[in-house]
Amino acid sequence: MSKLINNKDLEFLLYNVFNAEQLTQLPRFAEHDRTTFDSILTTAERIATDYFAPHNAKADANEPQFDGKNVTTIAEVKDAWRHFAESGLLCAKHDYAEGGMQLPSLLHMAANSFFMSANPSTAGYPFLTSAAANVIHAFGSDEQKAMFIPALFSGRFSGTMALTEPDVGSSLGDLSTKAVPAADGSYRIKGQKMYISGGDQDITENIVHLVLARIEGAEKGVKGISLFIVPKVMTHPDGSLAERNDVQLAGLLHKMGYRGTTSTVLNFGEQDQCVGYLLGEAGKGLMYMFKMMNEARIGVGLGAAMIGYRGYLASLDYARNRPQGRCVTEKGPDSKPINIIEHTDVKRMLLAQKAYVEGSLALCLLAARLVDEQEAGSDGDAGILLDLLTPIVKSFPSFYGPRANDLAIQVLGGAGYTREYPVEQCYRDNRLNPIHEGTHGIQSLDLLGRKLWQHNGKGLKLLMARMHSTLASAAQKPQLGELVSEFEHYLTQVQTTTLKLGGAMQTGQIEEALANSALFLDMLGKTVVGWLWLEMADKALVTFAASSNAEDTDFVAGKLQAAQYFIRWEMPEIELQARLLQRFDRSCLDMQSAWF
Amino acid sequence: MSKLINNKDLEFLLYNVFNAEQLTQLPRFAEHDRTTFDSILTTAERIATDYFAPHNAKADANEPQFDGKNVTTIAEVKDAWRHFAESGLLCAKHDYAEGGMQLPSLLHMAANSFFMSANPSTAGYPFLTSAAANVIHAFGSDEQKAMFIPALFSGRFSGTMALTEPDVGSSLGDLSTKAVPAADGSYRIKGQKMYISGGDQDITENIVHLVLARIEGAEKGVKGISLFIVPKVMTHPDGSLAERNDVQLAGLLHKMGYRGTTSTVLNFGEQDQCVGYLLGEAGKGLMYMFKMMNEARIGVGLGAAMIGYRGYLASLDYARNRPQGRCVTEKGPDSKPINIIEHTDVKRMLLAQKAYVEGSLALCLLAARLVDEQEAGSDGDAGILLDLLTPIVKSFPSFYGPRANDLAIQVLGGAGYTREYPVEQCYRDNRLNPIHEGTHGIQSLDLLGRKLWQHNGKGLKLLMARMHSTLASAAQKPQLGELVSEFEHYLTQVQTTTLKLGGAMQTGQIEEALANSALFLDMLGKTVVGWLWLEMADKALVTFAASSNAEDTDFVAGKLQAAQYFIRWEMPEIELQARLLQRFDRSCLDMQSAWF
Repeated sequence: MSKLINNKDLEFLLYNVFNAEQLTQLPRFAEHDRTTFDSILTTAERIATDYFAPHNAKADANEPQFDGKNVTTIAEVKDAWRHFAESGLLCAKHDYAEGGMQLPSLLHMAANSFFMSANPSTAGYPFLTSAAANVIHAFGSDEQKAMFIPALFSGRFSGTMALTEPDVGSSLGDLSTKAVPAADGSYRIKGQKMYISGGDQDITENIVHLVLARIEGAEKGVKGISLFIVPKVMTHPDGSLAERNDVQLAGLLHKMGYRGTTSTVLNFGEQDQCVGYLLGEAGKGLMYMFKMMNEARIGVGLGAAMIGYRGYLASLDYARNRPQGRCVTEKGPDSKPINIIEHTDVKRMLLAQKAYVEGSLALCLLAARLVDEQEAGSDGDAGILLDLLTPIVKSFPSFYGPRANDLAIQVLGGAGYTREYPVEQCYRDNRLNPIHEGTHGIQSLDLLGRKLWQHNGKGLKLLMARMHSTLASAAQKPQLGELVSEFEHYLTQVQTTTLKLGGAMQTGQIEEALANSALFLDMLGKTVVGWLWLEMADKALVTFAASSNAEDTDFVAGKLQAAQYFIRWEMPEIELQARLLQRFDRSCLDMQSAWF
Repeated sequence: MSKLINNKDLEFLLYNVFNAEQLTQLPRFAEHDRTTFDSILTTAERIATDYFAPHNAKADANEPQFDGKNVTTIAEVKDAWRHFAESGLLCAKHDYAEGGMQLPSLLHMAANSFFMSANPSTAGYPFLTSAAANVIHAFGSDEQKAMFIPALFSGRFSGTMALTEPDVGSSLGDLSTKAVPAADGSYRIKGQKMYISGGDQDITENIVHLVLARIEGAEKGVKGISLFIVPKVMTHPDGSLAERNDVQLAGLLHKMGYRGTTSTVLNFGEQDQCVGYLLGEAGKGLMYMFKMMNEARIGVGLGAAMIGYRGYLASLDYARNRPQGRCVTEKGPDSKPINIIEHTDVKRMLLAQKAYVEGSLALCLLAARLVDEQEAGSDGDAGILLDLLTPIVKSFPSFYGPRANDLAIQVLGGAGYTREYPVEQCYRDNRLNPIHEGTHGIQSLDLLGRKLWQHNGKGLKLLMARMHSTLASAAQKPQLGELVSEFEHYLTQVQTTTLKLGGAMQTGQIEEALANSALFLDMLGKTVVGWLWLEMADKALVTFAASSNAEDTDFVAGKLQAAQYFIRWEMPEIELQARLLQRFDRSCLDMQSAWF
């Protein structure tokens, strides 16, 4: 099996691009240093390699079964869960006092990357649990925290987010699950939720659902939605188990990939006995959920990046070891076949993958770095930039990660299409990512219809400032001068397009301005990742300037070549997108249902 | 279930774009008329709908099993085979005297499109059989024909093409399967073949393998390769069965999709008793096989187009009937949700699918029309153009069909990712098409390294002449004027690029000229399909000029809008591709294995 990640790449990103050690100057992280960081990464890599990777294919081939009463998962999933929980990674970011590690988000994201590469399905359970625990931790009462947090942090309980309903899909404002106040201060929940990942399983002794519902009589739309804690099994104040709550698994959904994670339809309150506890204030449910959701969106980005990364490494390994064919200038039957990595078109497919997945990982780590800066800072700038970037962090890897997996299959050819090799599973697993936690279309409207204009467009200004700093540094280096000019050419087009769209929004041409939002999402995504490629190239040159070690010089050459590939082969599409956006192209807007 | 195809679209393509009725003026097709054509299409649609479509998902979920001795497929596959064989479609193109229908290729392709949409896996068996029968029919001795053709035409036997070996993959010149002459004039075959579709099954009483092998002592490379007929069960001269031949199934390969078709590893001559009959002359094996291969490549294009088409219709059906969300200018919770087809981004995803799949189907029908012209004509022009277009007919649908299926999943969202809906299977099935019968990379080298320059570049000249004829007609129509100009802008770039690449080839810069062949393949593919979209738009305006029937005017509006989408949204990438190709960009060529 190929590695889960290129460790040299991860170290470079953490310590040379995103200055992880600088974080230890913050009071919260003062007890950390590179040694503690590295030791956590080593632990994560070991657990991912020993307990997650080995059953990735097995969990896919043996998806969870529901006999009408209980769900059964394969034993390896439970074992992986136990090792993950025992490592303390479920609450790695929390206070020492609560059993946490006070780990920066940047390092936490890096640790998670091993699990997403090793086995995204099994990793789904702990990641969802962390996210749910964080919401209760942030908004729950002391009593609620005492009841659930220790059990979630230690891995006795797992967590879910229960938003979607069969009839309303992503349109959460229309949801119809009801909450009726009971005499004891709790609520009785009634409704059906769908696509709930980890909504039932036999891994943990209890499952804590965070359920969006409308309190009886509350107003329509998003403002009438509240968030409830609904345990599968009722829980005593000390966290010990009581009787079953009225939450029933209606059925499992059968997915193309990500098969190891159960996807469920849940019935709440079929017997009118489903107890839920209001979390925080009534009517603020969606706001709370979005704390979880934003974290989840970045998590989806990471998953997409790492499934892409895994496929890349697998196809690289194959290409280096598979002899077949000849160079185009050497066709003689007496010559020896070359390894397929020598074919230029195979190099193209590997280089594109490298550009997509290493760029995507850098993007996710940037987001994590911004979380750390946001939590430490006082001016709110990092948070504003993070808000702007979240749709991109979710979408870019979700779009290009599957593209990378597509290329990985193509590198392997017929072998890649069989289940005897790992890349077809990557392709199936990764296809979920453009859908869940808000589709591409939803992300594009969030970006162009909302995020871009918040705080008077400050997010974009902050982004530009960071980009200009990279450009100034890179422009000093002869190897990067031409790429900097090319990048600036596209950046200008992005800025012009944004101004034009903003103008249209201001004059009320909302429908026209938003019609081609998908193009804008991709355009800004490519700009951000192109910037990160310049940043990586720049930092690689600086970091290894004095080295003559082949491993280092090869690493630098690879980063330069991938930066060149991304800027020359991928970024030019921005020109076309800018053209369509600037002329408010109506090809899609004018299309009518009857014309199809 | 949605329809297998938009019948109005198919009729339009056949009768208005490709003038099927004109073919009846040729002596060979003189007994046909629109009535006979339509009746064959009706039969094909009926059999595909009744016997192929219903078990498409079942065959996927219950793939063929091998118990070490026998392969078992589900009963529905055998039933479908029987109905297909009884319809006469296995030999539809052959002479009346041989039990055929003397059907033009154009109509044959149209009939096949129903099966590829309904169930590409089950359709694989008859299509491979037809292709194998055609090779024996074209190159076999009278004795060989008597022994195998009636059984293949009637569906008693099926056929395969056995090219690939585990160690050599697509590099056929290196294959090592051996053929040793025996005293009786036959040969003893020894070697292993892999990825042989339909290489074993329990559907027919015998399987006729066409096997590439090297006669002992023959030269290395492609010139030493011969083609052999190797039956699974030995056959008496009258076609009745004798004892088993020494052909053993070593195992089944387990694929991501196309699961209903067995993919096999076959051992020939484990006991040194494998009898094979030389087909045609020694050393011409690859040439013969390429007759089958070219037919198969066009068939792959059709399969990719139709799996794309099926997913498009399924997602269209879903989008028209699924209420969710509001228009971007109407967010009030009291308003009623709209059907998702009203969202512009959903229209984008449907319009792109329409442009890809209807364009791909038109491309495949063009190829079939050229086969008919080639067989009827005397100047060879149609054959030259067909040769040039074959890599595109194989590759364009194989690239854009899966893209269409990706968008179909996205239209359905979470539902699309589950096996409860048909689109995820389309996505998995279609992923095979860029691989088999020559990968994209191989097609791109075939096009840019060979086909483009044969006959002094006459193929491209013939293509340009056809394009200019369409442009002249379309330029007369006010609705198409702007699109014609835009198309001409890209066409000029393709021509300039081709000249520049040709110049480099002539001066021996082979490696540089071919380095970015994948870009060229896509560029010329988009040009050809863009032309076909203009042709469809032009012919739609003409055909329905006098109609005020809503169904007709909607059809025309849809063709115009899709033509506009394709030329404005897809063709501009040609600019970028032309730029990289014209500057002989070395990003991929210069990349080194150690830099990854």
